[in-house]
Amino acid sequence: MEMKETKRTPPNGLSHFVDIHEVPEEEEEEEEDKDERKRNKPTKAADHKEKRMSNKPMKLHEVKRQNQNFGRQVSLETGFSVLNGDKKGRKTALPRSGNSFGGFGSADRREAETRKGDFNMFRTKSSLVKQNSLLPFRKESGIDSHYNDASCGLDDSINKSVPAGRYFAALTGPELDQVKDSEDILLPKDKKWPFLLRFPIGCFGICLGLSSQAILWRALASSPATRFLHIPPLINLSIWLLALSVLVAVSITYTLKCAFYLEAVKREYFHPVRVNFFFAPSVVCMFLAIGVPPCIAPGNLHPAVWCVFMAPIVFLDLKVYGQWLSGGKRRLCKVANPSSHLSVVGNFVGAILAAKVGWMEAGKFLWAIGFAHYLVVFVTLYQRLPTSEALPKELHPVYSMFIATPAAASIAWGAIYGEFDGLARTCFFIALFLYCSLIVRINFFRGFQFSVAWWSYTFPMTTASIATIKYAEQVPCVISKGLALSLSLMSSTMVSVLLVSTLLHAFWWQTLFPNDLAIAITKRRQGGKEKKPIKKAYDIRRWTKQSPLSLVSGIRKQNSADKDGDEVEN
Amino acid sequence: MEMKETKRTPPNGLSHFVDIHEVPEEEEEEEEDKDERKRNKPTKAADHKEKRMSNKPMKLHEVKRQNQNFGRQVSLETGFSVLNGDKKGRKTALPRSGNSFGGFGSADRREAETRKGDFNMFRTKSSLVKQNSLLPFRKESGIDSHYNDASCGLDDSINKSVPAGRYFAALTGPELDQVKDSEDILLPKDKKWPFLLRFPIGCFGICLGLSSQAILWRALASSPATRFLHIPPLINLSIWLLALSVLVAVSITYTLKCAFYLEAVKREYFHPVRVNFFFAPSVVCMFLAIGVPPCIAPGNLHPAVWCVFMAPIVFLDLKVYGQWLSGGKRRLCKVANPSSHLSVVGNFVGAILAAKVGWMEAGKFLWAIGFAHYLVVFVTLYQRLPTSEALPKELHPVYSMFIATPAAASIAWGAIYGEFDGLARTCFFIALFLYCSLIVRINFFRGFQFSVAWWSYTFPMTTASIATIKYAEQVPCVISKGLALSLSLMSSTMVSVLLVSTLLHAFWWQTLFPNDLAIAITKRRQGGKEKKPIKKAYDIRRWTKQSPLSLVSGIRKQNSADKDGDEVEN
Amino acid sequence: MEMKETKRTPPNGLSHFVDIHEVPEEEEEEEEDKDERKRNKPTKAADHKEKRMSNKPMKLHEVKRQNQNFGRQVSLETGFSVLNGDKKGRKTALPRSGNSFGGFGSADRREAETRKGDFNMFRTKSSLVKQNSLLPFRKESGIDSHYNDASCGLDDSINKSVPAGRYFAALTGPELDQVKDSEDILLPKDKKWPFLLRFPIGCFGICLGLSSQAILWRALASSPATRFLHIPPLINLSIWLLALSVLVAVSITYTLKCAFYLEAVKREYFHPVRVNFFFAPSVVCMFLAIGVPPCIAPGNLHPAVWCVFMAPIVFLDLKVYGQWLSGGKRRLCKVANPSSHLSVVGNFVGAILAAKVGWMEAGKFLWAIGFAHYLVVFVTLYQRLPTSEALPKELHPVYSMFIATPAAASIAWGAIYGEFDGLARTCFFIALFLYCSLIVRINFFRGFQFSVAWWSYTFPMTTASIATIKYAEQVPCVISKGLALSLSLMSSTMVSVLLVSTLLHAFWWQTLFPNDLAIAITKRRQGGKEKKPIKKAYDIRRWTKQSPLSLVSGIRKQNSADKDGDEVEN
Repeated sequence: MEMKETKRTPPNGLSHFVDIHEVPEEEEEEEEDKDERKRNKPTKAADHKEKRMSNKPMKLHEVKRQNQNFGRQVSLETGFSVLNGDKKGRKTALPRSGNSFGGFGSADRREAETRKGDFNMFRTKSSLVKQNSLLPFRKESGIDSHYNDASCGLDDSINKSVPAGRYFAALTGPELDQVKDSEDILLPKDKKWPFLLRFPIGCFGICLGLSSQAILWRALASSPATRFLHIPPLINLSIWLLALSVLVAVSITYTLKCAFYLEAVKREYFHPVRVNFFFAPSVVCMFLAIGVPPCIAPGNLHPAVWCVFMAPIVFLDLKVYGQWLSGGKRRLCKVANPSSHLSVVGNFVGAILAAKVGWMEAGKFLWAIGFAHYLVVFVTLYQRLPTSEALPKELHPVYSMFIATPAAASIAWGAIYGEFDGLARTCFFIALFLYCSLIVRINFFRGFQFSVAWWSYTFPMTTASIATIKYAEQVPCVISKGLALSLSLMSSTMVSVLLVSTLLHAFWWQTLFPNDLAIAITKRRQGGKEKKPIKKAYDIRRWTKQSPLSLVSGIRKQNSADKDGDEVEN
Repeated sequence: MEMKETKRTPPNGLSHFVDIHEVPEEEEEEEEDKDERKRNKPTKAADHKEKRMSNKPMKLHEVKRQNQNFGRQVSLETGFSVLNGDKKGRKTALPRSGNSFGGFGSADRREAETRKGDFNMFRTKSSLVKQNSLLPFRKESGIDSHYNDASCGLDDSINKSVPAGRYFAALTGPELDQVKDSEDILLPKDKKWPFLLRFPIGCFGICLGLSSQAILWRALASSPATRFLHIPPLINLSIWLLALSVLVAVSITYTLKCAFYLEAVKREYFHPVRVNFFFAPSVVCMFLAIGVPPCIAPGNLHPAVWCVFMAPIVFLDLKVYGQWLSGGKRRLCKVANPSSHLSVVGNFVGAILAAKVGWMEAGKFLWAIGFAHYLVVFVTLYQRLPTSEALPKELHPVYSMFIATPAAASIAWGAIYGEFDGLARTCFFIALFLYCSLIVRINFFRGFQFSVAWWSYTFPMTTASIATIKYAEQVPCVISKGLALSLSLMSSTMVSVLLVSTLLHAFWWQTLFPNDLAIAITKRRQGGKEKKPIKKAYDIRRWTKQSPLSLVSGIRKQNSADKDGDEVEN
Repeated sequence: MEMKETKRTPPNGLSHFVDIHEVPEEEEEEEEDKDERKRNKPTKAADHKEKRMSNKPMKLHEVKRQNQNFGRQVSLETGFSVLNGDKKGRKTALPRSGNSFGGFGSADRREAETRKGDFNMFRTKSSLVKQNSLLPFRKESGIDSHYNDASCGLDDSINKSVPAGRYFAALTGPELDQVKDSEDILLPKDKKWPFLLRFPIGCFGICLGLSSQAILWRALASSPATRFLHIPPLINLSIWLLALSVLVAVSITYTLKCAFYLEAVKREYFHPVRVNFFFAPSVVCMFLAIGVPPCIAPGNLHPAVWCVFMAPIVFLDLKVYGQWLSGGKRRLCKVANPSSHLSVVGNFVGAILAAKVGWMEAGKFLWAIGFAHYLVVFVTLYQRLPTSEALPKELHPVYSMFIATPAAASIAWGAIYGEFDGLARTCFFIALFLYCSLIVRINFFRGFQFSVAWWSYTFPMTTASIATIKYAEQVPCVISKGLALSLSLMSSTMVSVLLVSTLLHAFWWQTLFPNDLAIAITKRRQGGKEKKPIKKAYDIRRWTKQSPLSLVSGIRKQNSADKDGDEVEN
């Protein structure tokens, strides 16, 4: 029906506005990030209202060319591009609207070249004040108050957070990084986006993989269990420096993304899988602190290091676990996925670092938090409730996340309580069994496209190796040492392979950063089959009846609305 | 449709009987409390049958005025009021039926004044034997055996327990204490009910709050960690005496409620939230035993104290946990709510008391029970399964229950195993993190109406304070002592504030005990939209065809049934 | 509709093929046993393809009598019977098809007498190679490639595993051993099947019960806590020998079943309840090794014993837990049932044996695996998620499984860590509470029909008794010893009662092995209401339009399809 109508669209492209309004209200409420919205309310509320108002008149009147362009861009691009004076963006706005909402897909590639301004919708907001100056003009038109309810969803599609259910509905794949065929996205699929928009938070996974290797090689060099190998500490140092430099590079890049594309970062934060990667930077820092070469930091680390690195983790803990427990739609039974382990493992890593700086009780505190939530995540993931839609049917590297948390818990318990006792062993053996459970599956690392996120799946292997070395210190026998050695070898090999792949993808094939489609999903479902066609037809009818100013498009729409109605009623 | 039909009702109000019978069978089965029903079967079964029989003839014949009145009251009031010779109740029975079932709401306030007899439906049963004497008379009418299936639901609406799903369907709010707008209740909303009916089991929460304070101040006075404060033991004594006197008062009142309004007590027992408060009296007793001032009980307590106080808890454990695990509809994934912690915390408190009386192994037994079920409740609540409907979207004081159980578990483990080891610390830190997690939420204690149940939400804070004092004994440093002190201060402040509010509500505003709507929900859904209109129409048709005695009402019903059918088939 | 159409069926019975194809695709995918299918792919894939091809032409043409017979038998009996030259089977194939698929039920009992060949469908495959020789002939027909999607489900109904959801849909009862009334089964209900087909995997439960008794009587004879009883070690020896001989007998019988009816064994393996009994043989062996009389094996056992007995358990662990965690439809929240405990308890038993042979670390490894999965199973079962359909409403002996795992975990922790510490006691007391929780339910062992599976419900009682003896060793007092004694007595009594019942059922009434209906369910739902009639009608239309060769049946089907469509559209 959507498609049928677009065929009847006149070439001026204006009637796409109609399509926008036909989108029915979705049931999903955006209750998330309530705190944030509360804080921003004073400015945002006014901002929303202004945009809704500014949007309507053009759709009803369809008179002034200038207004039309403005309205189009406000609704799609949240009103940023209209103010940067980008003439190109202004000209091509309407065709792109057709691309995004009408469902034409890659209809005309020619125009895609000229759509630079689109990416502005993910830009950091900085020009809201200027828009407000246009408010009085629109207020006078006076006929827009009727349609607030119909239009409030789409216009502020960027301002409000995308609900968690929307990500599950629009995306697919174990990492929720592929857009479903039925979905349209806000940005053009067929051209390369700006680099910063294509730079996902998952890149911190590279640092996770490298910094954990630094710890591994430090342990191999210094542990009594592997002393017979005579590993030079130089390896630790070089990997550590490499990890540090990569961390600096990635951090700077992502900071730039935060600075320029804060909206895109926010969308990553609301992504049920990606949000867990926001724990990664702090975890990497702690990994680097734990694996610091003895020549760089000979003595104990200062507790301040721990405080600085733990602060973001504790903040995110309170935020994320609070979302699970209370309020909103991000209930754990819905958002749980293997990468949720990442949001738990930080506590155990913090506990290890706490033991290193000598704050045992702080470590025990973190271990307790981590353990309580690990328990919940573990049970939830093992149950594979029907509500957790993200869990892949096939095995996938993301499942290696299962190994990381018990292994880290085991090391942490041994470190903070000073003995590798029953509980530490239990955690270690659970990690070991899950490791076995994954490597006996043949199709583990096959048939999946390489992505930066793969790096995150190496640090569990490394953590398991380190835990095995700790275990081999306690139970020094051939089997434990052999296991420690082989696991270390496996993880190092995997990291090397990934390093080479990453370099090849980055510099040879230049495909390391494809368009990050996951952040560009529409806030509400566009195209495809509508859920409530009756309501839709009704809305259109009311719309056409109440607006005396829309003559041509109104009649045309009346027809299509009737057809909709007929189709529905039959 | 329901409403439409009531308009066509003749003014004599008799056709309300028809409405009653049109209510379709709900899918929810009342399998709960099977044991109890079994025990009562010999008397109850006969009783049910008798009432069904006694009920039908009047609805079919509509001849004898006397019989009509009897049938009406039997169906609504379970046949108690008819026998106490209350003439007023007899006269006003029919109009009240209109109020409850016809959906008129507060149509005529004048009549509400005369409905004293209504409250009798929650009275303790004592006159069942006399009713049975009417049995032979009814058996002879002979036409009622056909309609047992259609009528067995409503007539014994009090005799059988209200199913758990009904509470979730009819009530709302985190404490399931508000009746949904679409629901009608059995008792008049617009007048004050008898005091005992308005006295909820949640009043034991007051004792919980006070008696835990007694323990806290005993610990503050005697613990080496807080010895520097020089707290006089007199505070412990005075709070303890206050708590004891409140407990005595509340116990006496609730015992009176049990004596006079056993049906209301039963309804509280089947309430998914309230049932947990049935653990409270024993917990309060144990709190008082634990916090007994040294001047009153200088030596160790006698194990008999523990036995007496634990018996109800173990009995309820077997009952409640058995319901979760096996049989019936009260599956944990459905009834789990934060106040379920109350049903777990009793075991840990029992373990602490067991340690105090010297029965370590009994304490370990209780701790194990408590821990196993705490684990299940904790995971279930954290997952927030879509089936657990009671969980509030917004944060609510009831969430403080999350703190109580791990804190009590920590104290108990330390007491029964003699050392505050890794497990005790883990539990303690989990409690501490959950505490933090709650206090960082801004809207924690705002925007909620005061109710007696709030008291129950203070004892978790007190328990956490006591656990912190125990921790500060183990790890005596500024931070731990400061934490213990500030948490104690917070909990005492909260209790003081609540004490003042309660006194104000009780004696100044006299609004401490509003009508306890939650216990007066109808056993089956009345009014609103029906779920199975086809079945309904069919049932009515069959009814009209099979009963040759119902002429006038039969034809009227045939019409409405046809209309139902048409509405459905279109 | 299905039924209506069968009335229009011409008497030659051929149009049943049409019925077969009208069965809509079920949503449940058969992703299980992926590994196995992969291994078999080279031969199976070709085999499937061949059968699909070989199947279609006949359905379209309906010309050659010979082909018809072949196609029929391939689709129902997976092509085994057609090659063993069983003329009887060939003749009766079509009527039996009517019985199985047309929904006639037990229409004509006369024919049931001649259906000897039916049992062959569960025979071990051995003749797949010969069938492939027919492949080229069918490939030439050339019109079948269109319909692969429609037919691939039914034809290989035995080759592919029955999906887990199918078992839940077709079977009922807590052991999923009764066929629902609406279901038809592949084998005749009204005659006795071959003994091996009636011999379920649950028979190993007999060995479980007896071998655990051997351990109990060894513990009673040797434990310091029960030394005062002066139990002669002869009892241990005699029970042990009895258990060993029963194990040998059962093993041989089941090995024969594996050899002759591998397909039936596979169906037991895919049965959500029965799969757990595949752990039983190894557990029995380990029980026998643990309870070996001192006179037979005076010293420590050799670790090789442990390796041999543990190998199948670890293999099954990896398989079963992997299914829970990843891939396929056998998600834990769906397949969890009390007998899942059986798949966990093996690890703890293995840990006990590991402690006995001196491999403590291996024991700790097993304990960790067991504990992690016990946790998940325990929480899942306690929650009673709406998805786990197998959980019985009423209490049932199968609930005794709840006791086994914590009791075994307690013994194992005590054995491998050398002390019966807090964790061991917690596990033990959890088992004890669950035991109490079950015995206070009155209807525990009443109203259920005896079956061999009951034996499996005795070993939890025995395990609890042994754990109590271990506990009484640690806490030697009257209560603990009395508890140990009474629990031992109860479990021995229960085993004696069951032994007598079993002997009576086996030799007196000869009803020990009824027809094992659970393995003979159809792979897809037959008869009853169809789920997707629209899709069905559409498929048939497409089918009739695209195949120019099907004239007569095409027109007949067009009619029925139109009728379907009308029915749906109205």
